[in-house]
Amino acid sequence: MTRPVPNSRSDYVVFQTITTRWFDNDIYGHMNNAVHYQLFDTAVNGHLMSAGVLDLKSSPSVFLVVQNSCDYFGELAFPDLITAGVRVAHLGKSSVTYDIGLFRNDAVEAAAQGQFVHVNVDRETRQSVPIGDAARQVLSAMRMGA
Amino acid sequence: MTRPVPNSRSDYVVFQTITTRWFDNDIYGHMNNAVHYQLFDTAVNGHLMSAGVLDLKSSPSVFLVVQNSCDYFGELAFPDLITAGVRVAHLGKSSVTYDIGLFRNDAVEAAAQGQFVHVNVDRETRQSVPIGDAARQVLSAMRMGA
Amino acid sequence: MTRPVPNSRSDYVVFQTITTRWFDNDIYGHMNNAVHYQLFDTAVNGHLMSAGVLDLKSSPSVFLVVQNSCDYFGELAFPDLITAGVRVAHLGKSSVTYDIGLFRNDAVEAAAQGQFVHVNVDRETRQSVPIGDAARQVLSAMRMGA
Amino acid sequence: MTRPVPNSRSDYVVFQTITTRWFDNDIYGHMNNAVHYQLFDTAVNGHLMSAGVLDLKSSPSVFLVVQNSCDYFGELAFPDLITAGVRVAHLGKSSVTYDIGLFRNDAVEAAAQGQFVHVNVDRETRQSVPIGDAARQVLSAMRMGA
Repeated sequence: MTRPVPNSRSDYVVFQTITTRWFDNDIYGHMNNAVHYQLFDTAVNGHLMSAGVLDLKSSPSVFLVVQNSCDYFGELAFPDLITAGVRVAHLGKSSVTYDIGLFRNDAVEAAAQGQFVHVNVDRETRQSVPIGDAARQVLSAMRMGA
Repeated sequence: MTRPVPNSRSDYVVFQTITTRWFDNDIYGHMNNAVHYQLFDTAVNGHLMSAGVLDLKSSPSVFLVVQNSCDYFGELAFPDLITAGVRVAHLGKSSVTYDIGLFRNDAVEAAAQGQFVHVNVDRETRQSVPIGDAARQVLSAMRMGA
Repeated sequence: MTRPVPNSRSDYVVFQTITTRWFDNDIYGHMNNAVHYQLFDTAVNGHLMSAGVLDLKSSPSVFLVVQNSCDYFGELAFPDLITAGVRVAHLGKSSVTYDIGLFRNDAVEAAAQGQFVHVNVDRETRQSVPIGDAARQVLSAMRMGA
Repeated sequence: MTRPVPNSRSDYVVFQTITTRWFDNDIYGHMNNAVHYQLFDTAVNGHLMSAGVLDLKSSPSVFLVVQNSCDYFGELAFPDLITAGVRVAHLGKSSVTYDIGLFRNDAVEAAAQGQFVHVNVDRETRQSVPIGDAARQVLSAMRMGA
């Protein structure tokens, strides 16, 4: 297994604050590993929605996750307050790769960091379609140094 | 079915702010009914933990839910910001009944309101035990007009 | 609090087998109370779908939960196998009330039992509409003694 | 992004049947990507528990996830019945890497497949400890061709 180094907040471009929930904790008293992926979706889609380029109910195209991964460096747990940092790592014609880091309270290093690949598909046919101009502009601004 | 009237924020005593998540929304585009119960736990246990009377890992006694219910008046959905209001409706020797209201963004009326009954039990034997003095003091202060 | 008596399997009409999951267990080592409501939805909607009267993607009307409740008599936990029993308690013009019991492995008494009220609404306007003939026939057959 | 080829059932060693739930489906009408990770935990820990080498409440050491990933090839959705196939890809001194495939109903190719790395740690100190003999024997038998 390849073990990356934890990122810091300055490695990300946009941020979302996420409150934890009692049932995020599993029997080991920490956030279950599957919850991190709920937070990844929340951080990315939350930013896209606030930027006006993702309408969950009426967009003709939607972004589906085709690949994701996470490295866990430290434990998160309710009642921690989490800051999720996001950056666009790669922006293709119809797909985009995000890097996300989850920071515990005031921590400077990520407790977990992941990556996921969104493919833009037609809502009905599920065939990939090019990312539109408005979304592309928002995504471009999410790259480091953009 | 008995249909209560939505409460307002002034009907509750303590409050917690809870962020919604992308996967709170089900196929109907709104918060799934089971999520409301996750928020009830979060609001109540969050207050008890911040008041120092609930330690998830080491308390010799824990509060278990033996009964709960919810009425849904309006839809909540990601990316709403939710305020949960809590009050103690009844405080017994070893049990406590909470009323909880969930408020959408700046709404004055609850989108959903529920009730649940916590019984204080020994962590190992699961037998009910009297609520201790410290917890009782915190719970007493959560009654309306307390 | 009113405390009902646990039902037995013969108190229900249709049944669904549900496997538990590792993360159903919370920090107390048992199924978190909010999970029971996920199982209620699964048992009811699963039966309606297998009976051909609920198409999650294309039905013009959908059933929304407006009220639900649960009494917890005993603990459920991964890796238990759960049998959910369902019966229709009340069938109105545009709403239906279900009783659901959750049985642990081979237990004869319910570990938890609940009730929820579905209102049939237009998918777009969310206004209540009469339950159609096909669904009504399926629901009628879910009453005790039907 | 590297895109692997879907595995078939014969690529795995042990299998668990998992029922889907109504709320596995998100607003896109398919199983949300975070749910797959709940199923990975369930498949692996379910096998370890049935083999008697994982006691969630009393084991002095527990397995924590330090890295995981998933590739999504096709959609899963309620009410699909899922078969999870598991094999041990690598067995180290204190860590083990699993490959998991999720198969939809009677499909021969995996709809999703992932990998996760468990590290065996002391329940209290969270320091890694060698995998014990009993668990090692069970894990060794989960390798292809074992």
